[in-house]
Amino acid sequence: MSKVNLKTLAKELAVSISTVSKALRDSHEIGDETKQQVLAKAKELGYKPNPYASYMRQQKSNTIALIIPEMTNSFFLNVIDGAESVATENDYHLLIYITHEDAQKEKRIINHLQNGRVDGIIMSLSSTVDEYSHLHECIENNIPIIFFDRICHEIETIKITTDDFTSAFIATEHLIKNGCKKIAYLSIAENLSIDNKRMQGYSEALSKHDIEFDKSRIVRCNNDDKFNYKKIKQLFKNIEVDGVFSSIEKFALSTYSVCKDVGINIPNDVKIISFSNIATADFLSPALTTITQPAHEMGVKAASELFKYLDKKRYNIPNENIIIKSTLTVRESSIKKK
Amino acid sequence: MSKVNLKTLAKELAVSISTVSKALRDSHEIGDETKQQVLAKAKELGYKPNPYASYMRQQKSNTIALIIPEMTNSFFLNVIDGAESVATENDYHLLIYITHEDAQKEKRIINHLQNGRVDGIIMSLSSTVDEYSHLHECIENNIPIIFFDRICHEIETIKITTDDFTSAFIATEHLIKNGCKKIAYLSIAENLSIDNKRMQGYSEALSKHDIEFDKSRIVRCNNDDKFNYKKIKQLFKNIEVDGVFSSIEKFALSTYSVCKDVGINIPNDVKIISFSNIATADFLSPALTTITQPAHEMGVKAASELFKYLDKKRYNIPNENIIIKSTLTVRESSIKKK
Repeated sequence: MSKVNLKTLAKELAVSISTVSKALRDSHEIGDETKQQVLAKAKELGYKPNPYASYMRQQKSNTIALIIPEMTNSFFLNVIDGAESVATENDYHLLIYITHEDAQKEKRIINHLQNGRVDGIIMSLSSTVDEYSHLHECIENNIPIIFFDRICHEIETIKITTDDFTSAFIATEHLIKNGCKKIAYLSIAENLSIDNKRMQGYSEALSKHDIEFDKSRIVRCNNDDKFNYKKIKQLFKNIEVDGVFSSIEKFALSTYSVCKDVGINIPNDVKIISFSNIATADFLSPALTTITQPAHEMGVKAASELFKYLDKKRYNIPNENIIIKSTLTVRESSIKKK
Repeated sequence: MSKVNLKTLAKELAVSISTVSKALRDSHEIGDETKQQVLAKAKELGYKPNPYASYMRQQKSNTIALIIPEMTNSFFLNVIDGAESVATENDYHLLIYITHEDAQKEKRIINHLQNGRVDGIIMSLSSTVDEYSHLHECIENNIPIIFFDRICHEIETIKITTDDFTSAFIATEHLIKNGCKKIAYLSIAENLSIDNKRMQGYSEALSKHDIEFDKSRIVRCNNDDKFNYKKIKQLFKNIEVDGVFSSIEKFALSTYSVCKDVGINIPNDVKIISFSNIATADFLSPALTTITQPAHEMGVKAASELFKYLDKKRYNIPNENIIIKSTLTVRESSIKKK
């Protein structure tokens, strides 16, 4: 079966290719009768517009990109699911890129996406990125970026986050109210906005309850599970800890692993709370207390906001912070056993 | 900053657009000196090829699609991670589509992908698809498809699966050896090849151990967690069950949920085993015995096989079944407590 294109249709109808093209785009230059004939013939022959040819005519790719730092975090999966649903509704295609927390990879991806591959980008920064020229360049090339979760303050655009400070404050206070006084904070990366806000919330809650902030209880984790396991094991060995506040889900799982291996009982010896969207929180041993982010909603919101600006020739996105609240779900890991 | 395109380069160098285009593609029609000049100027001005314009010249999109039935299954996440890594290595872009187990949505996606949007497709069938004309049409339009996990027997191509029959046989025999005689099978969909094979393995193991196959212990689950919860609850209420073999992960989690709510002890009252790639299997209460599929490896293999055929004008993929073995990981949920 040979492909039906504009040329085939033009030949069949004995009109010019330009007429067919304009008729399919519902141009006012073409009469209704001709439009009807073109549409009927297109349907009859099973014409499907070539996205690349139509890009060349309209300068639109009908594609957006979602750039995430990792796949093994249930938060990002829910974001993908949300963003994909909005893309599909708008008859758009969704490209997925994973930076694996590698700044160089993030730069290569952003570089690749310029000059028309996509109409816009939704992204969450890699934890190792510390300068943003690639993002500025992308914006200068008129490709809009909407940030979610790990946002870039330097870029003027819409940034969608959860209430990181308040959630962290509530979580830490929850541990304190359950008797914890020596609470460790598992940090993801100093240079990420979410980490700063979460640590500020943690620190503020300690301060409110007259507990001294102790630097030795701040553990800098990264993308390497083995490294994190070792760091957390060292923490328990070197210093007294009765509570753990984990800034992201995977560090909480590493903590479970350490506790299981060295015989620390959760929640008797140490209480744990974590930012997490893990589906199995209820079935963990013990069930994990989580700050559940509105991940799916954040994906939907990021994509919906982006679509507002895609049809504009020269977009002008306001610098706006949209905050969608998280919810604390208390389970066994953070409360006193009766 | 205005975009640098072939026209800009041609003007700057005072040569034709065609010369620039051919020089950038390293055509033999262009002399070495001119090529050097074009490349130097392209670098100087920061020229980035427009993917759509270059598609029009080369009829290649440098994009592949990955179509999966759902996002909330850790198996598919690992497949995405594997496929994305191969796409990146090959300087390709990866489009993600989720059918949400909806046959109509699968058809719309496949229809959308024809006429050049992608160079090839990797996919796992939706559980509600029961006729395959959309896939035949896609192949006729010269877009190669490689199947993984939920394959389509009707299409001659490469199909990547795990050893579903053998793994299911081993899993069921494992339950029998741990004392189970009344084993339920949680089925995903009659019309899926993986479900057939897994149920055959289950049935064969029962037969080997002289246990009668009892239709009332086959539970047809679907994509709706609430429906599955109800069906599993009914199963336990209506009939004696001492073992559960779950064909996919989410049904095992629903079983955990039912057992928790109605006070059935795992593994004392009922033993559970499941096909699953869940990262938290070790930390579940009790830890879940899994048949762990080589999900990441399957994603890498599917993408790698596809790339072998993308550069051919008219591809001819052999009809081949590639089987990558799963591993049984025995944990607390399936063994007698000491």
